[in-house]
Amino acid sequence: MISFENDYNTGAHPRILERLMETNTEPLSGYGTDPYCEQAKEKIRASCQCPDAQVEFLSGGTQTNSVVISTMLSDYEGVLAADTGHISTHEAGAIEFAGHKVLTLPHQEGKILPDTLKKWMKDFYGDGNHEHMVFPGMVYLSHPTEYGTLYTKEELTKISSICHTYQIPLFLDGARLGYGLMSLSTDLTLPDIASLCDVFYIGGTKVGCLCGEAVVFSKQNRPSHFMTSVKKRGALLAKGRLLGIQFDTLFTDDLYFEISSHAIMMAEQLKEIFHEVGLPFYLESPTNQQFIILENQQMEELKKEVAFSFWEKYDETHTVVRFATSWSTKEADLKKLKELLLS
Amino acid sequence: MISFENDYNTGAHPRILERLMETNTEPLSGYGTDPYCEQAKEKIRASCQCPDAQVEFLSGGTQTNSVVISTMLSDYEGVLAADTGHISTHEAGAIEFAGHKVLTLPHQEGKILPDTLKKWMKDFYGDGNHEHMVFPGMVYLSHPTEYGTLYTKEELTKISSICHTYQIPLFLDGARLGYGLMSLSTDLTLPDIASLCDVFYIGGTKVGCLCGEAVVFSKQNRPSHFMTSVKKRGALLAKGRLLGIQFDTLFTDDLYFEISSHAIMMAEQLKEIFHEVGLPFYLESPTNQQFIILENQQMEELKKEVAFSFWEKYDETHTVVRFATSWSTKEADLKKLKELLLS
Amino acid sequence: MISFENDYNTGAHPRILERLMETNTEPLSGYGTDPYCEQAKEKIRASCQCPDAQVEFLSGGTQTNSVVISTMLSDYEGVLAADTGHISTHEAGAIEFAGHKVLTLPHQEGKILPDTLKKWMKDFYGDGNHEHMVFPGMVYLSHPTEYGTLYTKEELTKISSICHTYQIPLFLDGARLGYGLMSLSTDLTLPDIASLCDVFYIGGTKVGCLCGEAVVFSKQNRPSHFMTSVKKRGALLAKGRLLGIQFDTLFTDDLYFEISSHAIMMAEQLKEIFHEVGLPFYLESPTNQQFIILENQQMEELKKEVAFSFWEKYDETHTVVRFATSWSTKEADLKKLKELLLS
Amino acid sequence: MISFENDYNTGAHPRILERLMETNTEPLSGYGTDPYCEQAKEKIRASCQCPDAQVEFLSGGTQTNSVVISTMLSDYEGVLAADTGHISTHEAGAIEFAGHKVLTLPHQEGKILPDTLKKWMKDFYGDGNHEHMVFPGMVYLSHPTEYGTLYTKEELTKISSICHTYQIPLFLDGARLGYGLMSLSTDLTLPDIASLCDVFYIGGTKVGCLCGEAVVFSKQNRPSHFMTSVKKRGALLAKGRLLGIQFDTLFTDDLYFEISSHAIMMAEQLKEIFHEVGLPFYLESPTNQQFIILENQQMEELKKEVAFSFWEKYDETHTVVRFATSWSTKEADLKKLKELLLS
Repeated sequence: MISFENDYNTGAHPRILERLMETNTEPLSGYGTDPYCEQAKEKIRASCQCPDAQVEFLSGGTQTNSVVISTMLSDYEGVLAADTGHISTHEAGAIEFAGHKVLTLPHQEGKILPDTLKKWMKDFYGDGNHEHMVFPGMVYLSHPTEYGTLYTKEELTKISSICHTYQIPLFLDGARLGYGLMSLSTDLTLPDIASLCDVFYIGGTKVGCLCGEAVVFSKQNRPSHFMTSVKKRGALLAKGRLLGIQFDTLFTDDLYFEISSHAIMMAEQLKEIFHEVGLPFYLESPTNQQFIILENQQMEELKKEVAFSFWEKYDETHTVVRFATSWSTKEADLKKLKELLLS
Repeated sequence: MISFENDYNTGAHPRILERLMETNTEPLSGYGTDPYCEQAKEKIRASCQCPDAQVEFLSGGTQTNSVVISTMLSDYEGVLAADTGHISTHEAGAIEFAGHKVLTLPHQEGKILPDTLKKWMKDFYGDGNHEHMVFPGMVYLSHPTEYGTLYTKEELTKISSICHTYQIPLFLDGARLGYGLMSLSTDLTLPDIASLCDVFYIGGTKVGCLCGEAVVFSKQNRPSHFMTSVKKRGALLAKGRLLGIQFDTLFTDDLYFEISSHAIMMAEQLKEIFHEVGLPFYLESPTNQQFIILENQQMEELKKEVAFSFWEKYDETHTVVRFATSWSTKEADLKKLKELLLS
Repeated sequence: MISFENDYNTGAHPRILERLMETNTEPLSGYGTDPYCEQAKEKIRASCQCPDAQVEFLSGGTQTNSVVISTMLSDYEGVLAADTGHISTHEAGAIEFAGHKVLTLPHQEGKILPDTLKKWMKDFYGDGNHEHMVFPGMVYLSHPTEYGTLYTKEELTKISSICHTYQIPLFLDGARLGYGLMSLSTDLTLPDIASLCDVFYIGGTKVGCLCGEAVVFSKQNRPSHFMTSVKKRGALLAKGRLLGIQFDTLFTDDLYFEISSHAIMMAEQLKEIFHEVGLPFYLESPTNQQFIILENQQMEELKKEVAFSFWEKYDETHTVVRFATSWSTKEADLKKLKELLLS
Repeated sequence: MISFENDYNTGAHPRILERLMETNTEPLSGYGTDPYCEQAKEKIRASCQCPDAQVEFLSGGTQTNSVVISTMLSDYEGVLAADTGHISTHEAGAIEFAGHKVLTLPHQEGKILPDTLKKWMKDFYGDGNHEHMVFPGMVYLSHPTEYGTLYTKEELTKISSICHTYQIPLFLDGARLGYGLMSLSTDLTLPDIASLCDVFYIGGTKVGCLCGEAVVFSKQNRPSHFMTSVKKRGALLAKGRLLGIQFDTLFTDDLYFEISSHAIMMAEQLKEIFHEVGLPFYLESPTNQQFIILENQQMEELKKEVAFSFWEKYDETHTVVRFATSWSTKEADLKKLKELLLS
């Protein structure tokens, strides 16, 4: 059985486990105040070319979205997101649990188009009374999106500019950021993102960690007493070292970029295989998630030997499925997949 | 520098790291649905002699308290706890974040005495109208308590009985449960706890794990759609394997009990040293946390070579400090401490 | 200046003020436990032909929606509503404040079509994993809707049946219920609504009260300790008599229906005037809210002498506006409006 | 049957009902934007000698406490209150519902002593780490307290000064403020309170209104978009006129002070009666609530002819009960009470 089920189905990059072993017996102070956390933060700041950035580590994506959004919004504000955004659909109401509404915008292949946002803001502040409505207090983007697509530098610049016009922060969910940065067709760098966004996170869980996301507040805008707010949300790990050591490892010798790049190369090969086999793509994704349309019978057959994800029904006889590569995808598995598809 | 600062200052038990290594490349399903989680649950059920127990894994203590309490209380209820309870003082308002009040009872060395609880309940339901008050919906105990003390079987039986009289669940915070179970002066076993409590957790973070707590619902009383509620609180790890593998290791060949017992033996030696040196104890603790009273000058001197925790001021010239042993405490460090204290 | 701005721009029906005067000096017990509240509840039960109904009084519409929804949903559930529903758009995030998501369905003239709901439920429970999503825990309808439209008995029966299939309650927001019940083109009676819905409220604020809504739990399904939950939300009036006396008056000698009927007759005359003048309707409303399209210049002129509400932009040169009649609308004002429009 | 049960057992001051009648048919804009609200605010500002104060109207005490506290606290903060404070005990967890902890201080006859507060703050910021604790973000006082007692000008000045030292607002719950201001033994005026507190409210529900409290932000410190936050909490009345007209009436020709003074005179007579009869006082209250100790048998007898409140058990054979006067207490009732007690 080979697996392209998702990008979190294996453990951690071996170098991370080695570092955990090496440092295991050192007594370290808790709650993220240890030197490995400090080192990791310093390396991330350097990688972002943002020496003033405030970096914080959390355990997972939903937790990070909930903590960041709910500590940055004012009481009367909600967060704008694509209707396909992770916070809109697949976080079980975590934003609402913290008391805030997700205001949804129609998506285009998972993205919010700058014009859609612009028009929405203009309409909101345009006519009539909006004191009875939730105010837009933040824009949330995922990059790559839930469909594997990417914002261009032009798009992100425009969205950033709209946010600044209305004086609300731009938050980028980078659960799969590495795969976006190493995509063959992106023009956005990590420093670009640090500069255009007010806050974003560098995903670890899906890019080589056992768990962990690194939140970057790039404009000296970390909420006051952030550690207490993290604790209040049950999100403060006693052994912060677990997060610090992982990110320290990922940002040593460009490991994060190297393993992300590997996933992209594997995805390119995967695309080639699908092209060769003649399987139709649901949409064009330049990152590690590939969406294809399978005839239902074919899907059932393939399931017996390959793990992949159900995405959505296409029509009565076809289904959209997702194949994901990751830092741990092996070329041998691609080869085997190709054989299976051609057989 | 030697450290008795707390019981979470080192990494994980080596056998846990080995297991993480060994299983690292296996593709596993996410969110706690992998076979290691299943195995771990089975072993915990066996250890509790509670074949029907529902076991769930979470990452840390505050998170566990918040998730368990807020999913089990009704809207109009709060949780009863000692005024020294972790949820009352050191969780940054996590219970209140989830919308519920912590109703505090006066403690005795960290414990709620059965009579204190009984009287409180009787008074609450006694006279007058209580429709404008928060209803008691659960009793929260920590065992060992924040002062290292332990409930006796008689006390726990009485408290359990009061809870059942008023039909509210009894929840035991076992962040340091192993150290309680292996104490030389306890008469409570894990099956006793599973039988007397409605829900409790077996702490991993402070007993050999990188992170992780195992919640046991021992009365077929796990809240409906618990996974969704966990996700809603940002507490669902994508790589549930991280928790499953750790607990599977801890509950294989009684590792959990063995390493807890080690910490207790180290604590007994620590107590002996303090007795020999003539340092006064703040209270008598039968577990891994020891509280002694230091003269302030002496404390400042000792700090230079030994890490320990400030607990509270004793008087103008003395301070209560905490020394903690753990699964990872080395005998050599105790020896060194003794030398320092005697020099 | 004449006003059709909304249906809450005058005080209370004179008979209500008289009753407040008459009973003013009687010492009564607080928090809704007085005999006027009891009498009012009894009369409402009779009017609903639902002798077992549990009736509770609250102050306003948003408060009622928030209290009812948040006390009836389970932790992992959200409420389904039309994307134009009041809770979706104009309650400042009150449902989210209480920790729950509003799941939106596309509307048709303010209504949820039964087929839309049916398909949504089927899709939700159809394929794939939904443990990471907010579960549908209730259906919220407004009747009349925000566009003044009404559900037919057939539609409400179908929606009720879908709710029962999935075992979730159907909640009807009747902020303007009187105007719906007395519409010339409805086939739904108050007993029908009590029978088809699990919970609904009879609006007072917009139908003759100073404030107040009467919530009817028609299936013995009032949440446990409801008074405490109301208090917890800051929604319990000390002088519950204010609500009891108002509803007692409204449900004596059919006053509620009589004054609602008056508003409908006024609305019918209003429609006739617009037809005569040749003003286009934005949609066909059978209740007290009428939506017409005005040329912008004309709108500005009319504003100087008549109060009405901006609804939304129609196109660059036209605007949709709302005229509302109510229990207090005077025929003389209609006459004056007609003169103005014809002049 | 005569009633001293509480100070909210009758309707509204007759002048208020008259004004509601007189203005009833005027079409007014909603949600507190009408001219009566404006007038009332202006009069309150004048009465407070605080021309810059921002005044807002809400419906009841618990609602006001919850709205004010939760909109003024930061995420990581809680509110300090006496353990007998209304928010600590009798608001069903309303503060916690909004996500914040009530941090309790021991009371003295219902009051927080300045030294108690000072010591608490010093200890909190004194030693050790408090990042895991709820930060003190506001001080809540009730004046009169739940025991009818009053802060002196010196005490309030000291508490205000401590708050300013720690840069947190001082909030005074004035549910019964009129009775405090007109007490024969107070040295605090309304302008004093406006000057010493950062926010407070002037109670209407217990001082002549059907419902309503006037919140005064005296330091230009009303939270941003307050109306939206009020709406989000279900606390915005559509017919804001109900509150505006009531407070406009109360602050016309000093009616608020005049009727409060009446209640105090009635309380003084009540005290005299108790003294004459030789009933022991539980504590000395200078306001409209009087607490006496009754022998249980005597209490049961008296109950048959007089309504009063159970307060708490005194001992096995005695009970503390509360007699309250109000703006509507009649001298004839006092006379009758005296006769009953002497018979």
